[in-house]
Amino acid sequence: MRKFRNLVTNADLSASELLDIVKLGEAIAKQPEQYLDLCHGKVLGSLFFEPSTRTRLSFEAAMLRLGGSVVTIPEPNVSSTTKGESLKDTIRTVSSYTDIIAMRHPHEGAGTLAAEVSPVPFINAGDGGHQHPTQTLTDLLTIYEHKHSLENNVIGLCGDLKFGRTVHSLVQTLSKFKGNKFIFISPKELQIPDYLRIFLNENNLEYKEVSSLDEVIDELDILYMTRVQKERFFNEADYIRLKDSYILNLAKLAKAKSDMIILHPLPRVNEIAEEVDQDPRAKYFNQVKNGMYVRMALILRLLEVK
Amino acid sequence: MRKFRNLVTNADLSASELLDIVKLGEAIAKQPEQYLDLCHGKVLGSLFFEPSTRTRLSFEAAMLRLGGSVVTIPEPNVSSTTKGESLKDTIRTVSSYTDIIAMRHPHEGAGTLAAEVSPVPFINAGDGGHQHPTQTLTDLLTIYEHKHSLENNVIGLCGDLKFGRTVHSLVQTLSKFKGNKFIFISPKELQIPDYLRIFLNENNLEYKEVSSLDEVIDELDILYMTRVQKERFFNEADYIRLKDSYILNLAKLAKAKSDMIILHPLPRVNEIAEEVDQDPRAKYFNQVKNGMYVRMALILRLLEVK
Amino acid sequence: MRKFRNLVTNADLSASELLDIVKLGEAIAKQPEQYLDLCHGKVLGSLFFEPSTRTRLSFEAAMLRLGGSVVTIPEPNVSSTTKGESLKDTIRTVSSYTDIIAMRHPHEGAGTLAAEVSPVPFINAGDGGHQHPTQTLTDLLTIYEHKHSLENNVIGLCGDLKFGRTVHSLVQTLSKFKGNKFIFISPKELQIPDYLRIFLNENNLEYKEVSSLDEVIDELDILYMTRVQKERFFNEADYIRLKDSYILNLAKLAKAKSDMIILHPLPRVNEIAEEVDQDPRAKYFNQVKNGMYVRMALILRLLEVK
Repeated sequence: MRKFRNLVTNADLSASELLDIVKLGEAIAKQPEQYLDLCHGKVLGSLFFEPSTRTRLSFEAAMLRLGGSVVTIPEPNVSSTTKGESLKDTIRTVSSYTDIIAMRHPHEGAGTLAAEVSPVPFINAGDGGHQHPTQTLTDLLTIYEHKHSLENNVIGLCGDLKFGRTVHSLVQTLSKFKGNKFIFISPKELQIPDYLRIFLNENNLEYKEVSSLDEVIDELDILYMTRVQKERFFNEADYIRLKDSYILNLAKLAKAKSDMIILHPLPRVNEIAEEVDQDPRAKYFNQVKNGMYVRMALILRLLEVK
Repeated sequence: MRKFRNLVTNADLSASELLDIVKLGEAIAKQPEQYLDLCHGKVLGSLFFEPSTRTRLSFEAAMLRLGGSVVTIPEPNVSSTTKGESLKDTIRTVSSYTDIIAMRHPHEGAGTLAAEVSPVPFINAGDGGHQHPTQTLTDLLTIYEHKHSLENNVIGLCGDLKFGRTVHSLVQTLSKFKGNKFIFISPKELQIPDYLRIFLNENNLEYKEVSSLDEVIDELDILYMTRVQKERFFNEADYIRLKDSYILNLAKLAKAKSDMIILHPLPRVNEIAEEVDQDPRAKYFNQVKNGMYVRMALILRLLEVK
Repeated sequence: MRKFRNLVTNADLSASELLDIVKLGEAIAKQPEQYLDLCHGKVLGSLFFEPSTRTRLSFEAAMLRLGGSVVTIPEPNVSSTTKGESLKDTIRTVSSYTDIIAMRHPHEGAGTLAAEVSPVPFINAGDGGHQHPTQTLTDLLTIYEHKHSLENNVIGLCGDLKFGRTVHSLVQTLSKFKGNKFIFISPKELQIPDYLRIFLNENNLEYKEVSSLDEVIDELDILYMTRVQKERFFNEADYIRLKDSYILNLAKLAKAKSDMIILHPLPRVNEIAEEVDQDPRAKYFNQVKNGMYVRMALILRLLEVK
C-alpha cells in the first residue's frame, strides 16, 4: 500500500503533503468553479455511525461541488450492523459501491481498521475520542489563507485543552512547521494532557501554559477557542462552574493585535460572545467554508484527480 | 437586501411576482427537459428539523431536475443542535456549503430568523403552525393551469378552516388577485379564525360561511378540501365526531360544475373517497407534480438563473 | 400494462428476460464507464420503510453510476404515514417526483400493491418475508460471470433453508434454466419448506436433501451459504445450538472442486470463517459489486434506456 492512500490521522501526512493539500484548498477557495466536474462519475460513501451533521454535510458538499455524487448513512441505527455484521465486512461492502469513503465511528481505532480493509481511499472523519484529521486541515487552511505561512506563528489555544482533541491534533501538526510557539490558556482542571506536554518537550517546541487569556492575548497571531463540552464532565456542577471561564468578548479582544485571527472548530455554545462575530478578526465562519474546500482538495489528492 | 431574496411567507411576494413564478412553473410543467441543467454545480441545503417527507422530497427532486445537487438533514435528531448550537449558527454553517436553503422547523418564527442570517437565498418550508408558502404556490399553479387565470374564481374551502394554515395562506394570497369569491364550508367548531375574518372584511373581499358542502357545491369553480388533522384536537371524541363531516364522494360531486377542480394539500385520510380519484375533476395528484415544478421555478428565480 | 414494467418477484421475468439482464449486468461490470450518463436527468425514489442499508446503497449507487440522481427515505419513521396516509397515496406522490421507484416495506404484499398504483416502473426491494428479486439477480450474475452459463450446474444450498427466502427465490429462478441440480444441506430443523419441495417435485427437478456439508462438497459447482438469522428463532437456545452447525472453513473447503464458487447473500455473521475470504473460490464480495451492476442493468431495462 503506497503512502497517503488514506487519511486516518494527520500523522499520516508529511509537512510537504500537508502544505500541498492546504495550497490546493486555497486555490479551490479562490475559484471553486474551476473544479466543478473533476469527480464526475465518482461516488463518495459518507458513513456516519455517530451523528455529526456539520462534518457529514461538509464532506458531501465537497464531493458534490467536484461533480461527484454521494451515498450516505446519515446516522447510527440505520445500519446492517444490527444483523451482526462486522465493521470489516461493512467497509468491504460499501467500498464495492463507492470510489472513496469518509467515516465517523464511535469506537477508537475504527478508522485504522477500516483503512486497512478498504480497497478504496479512506478518510477518517472521527473515531472514538474524535481524532479528526480534516478538522486540522481546515484550521491549517484558514491560518495559511490569512498568515500566508504555516511557520513562525504564535498560537494561543484557549478553553478545554484536556479533552479537546482538535487542539492536540493542531499542535502536533503545526509542530511539523518551524518557528511556531504555543500558548496554552486554560483553567487548571482543563490543562493539556501529559502526553502532549511530553511531546512538546521531546521535540523542543516553544510553549507556555497560563490561566488568563487577558495577560497573553496581545502576544498572539492566532487565537484558537474551544468549546467546553458538557459531555466531557463527570458532574453538572463542574461544567457550570468552568464553562464560562474563558469566554471571548469585544472587551478582551481590545488588547489583541489587529491582524490576529480567531478560530473555533464549532459548534460554539457561548465561549465566543455573538458580538465578536462582526469583528474582522473573527474567522470561525470562514473556517466552515474552508472545511469544505480543504476536503475537496483532499478528495482530489486521494482520487489522484488532476 | 433586495426584495424577494428569500421566501418566508407569501406576503413577501407581490401579485406580479407570484404570477411570474406560476407562469414559469407552468412552462416547466410543459417541457421539464428544457430546464435540466440550469442549476448544474449548485447545491440545495434541505433541512428538515421536523419530518415532512413529502415536502422534503419535492424540494430535493426540484433541485435534482434542474441539474443541481442536494445535501440533506432528513429528520430532527441528526443535528448538531444536540451540542447546544443556535439555529443562527446552524444556518451560517449550512449556508457555507450550499447555494440555497429550504428549511422546515418546529418553532414559529424560525423561518424569519433563518432568512435574516442566511447569506444565501432561503425558503421557508414550514415553521411552527406551518406557514408554508410553497404549498400555496402549488395551489396557485394548479388553479392557473386549469382556469388560465388567478382572477374571478369562486373558491370553496371545506373542512378544517380553523387550524388549516394552507387555507389561510391561500385565501390571503388569492386576495391579491381581483374578482375572487370565497365560500367557507365547515362545522361551527372548525370555522375560520377571527383574524382571517377581519382581513376579509377590511379588504372588502366577497365571502360567505356555510356549514353544508351540498348546498354550495354547484357554485364553485374550485373546491379546496382539507384534512381534519387529529393532532389539532384536544380530545379523541371531538376528532372522531367531526372527521367524517365533510367527506367528498361521487354522490356529492354529481351537482358540481363539469369544469370545477378539486384540490387538496395532501396527505388525505378519508375526506375524499377513493372513488373520486378517477373523476377528471380530481386534481390533487396533479398538485403533487405541480409542487415540484413550482419549486423548480422558485429556485430558478431565487438563484437568478436564466 | 405491458409485461416487465415492474419487478415484484422473479416470477415476473422469463428465462430470456433474466438472461438479458444478467448479460447486460456482465457487460456493465466489464466497462462501467460506458454507462456513466445514460440516466442523466432521471430520478430514482429509494424508499426504505424498513431499514436495509446494504440494499439501499446498492440501488442508489447503481442510479448514480448511470448519471441519474436519487431522493431517499432512508428509514421507516420519517414518513408521512404518521399522518394516516395510505401506501397507495404515498406511491402516487413519490411517483410524481421520480422516474422509477425501489421500495422495501415490512408488509407482505406491499410490493404488489405499490406496483399496481405506480405510474412509473417499480422495483420490489423486499416486502414482508423479504421476497427480494434483485438479490437473486445478483446471484445469477455472479454464477454467470464464473460459469458462463445458468444451466447444468450443481448448486449446494447450505444453512437456513427454511426461513432463507433468498434460497427459495434462487431455486425457483434457476429452475427456469435446464440441467441444474440442487443439493440442500441443513439441519433437520431448517430444511426447505414443503411448498418448495412440492414445487421441485411437480417440475421434475433433480435434488437431494442432506445434513452434512462435508459429504457433498466435492460434487458442487456452486456453494450458496446462508446466514442463520437470530430473528427467525423463537428461542435463544435453539439459535445458539444451530448457528454454528454449518460453518465453512478452509478445512472443509479442501475437498471442494478448484473451480467451485462460494456465494453468500451477506451480511454474514460467522457461517463463513474469515480465513476463507482469501480463497480464490470466495465470490461473496464480488457479489456485492455485481449487485450494483445488475441493478444498473435492471434500471436501464425498466427505463428503456439504450
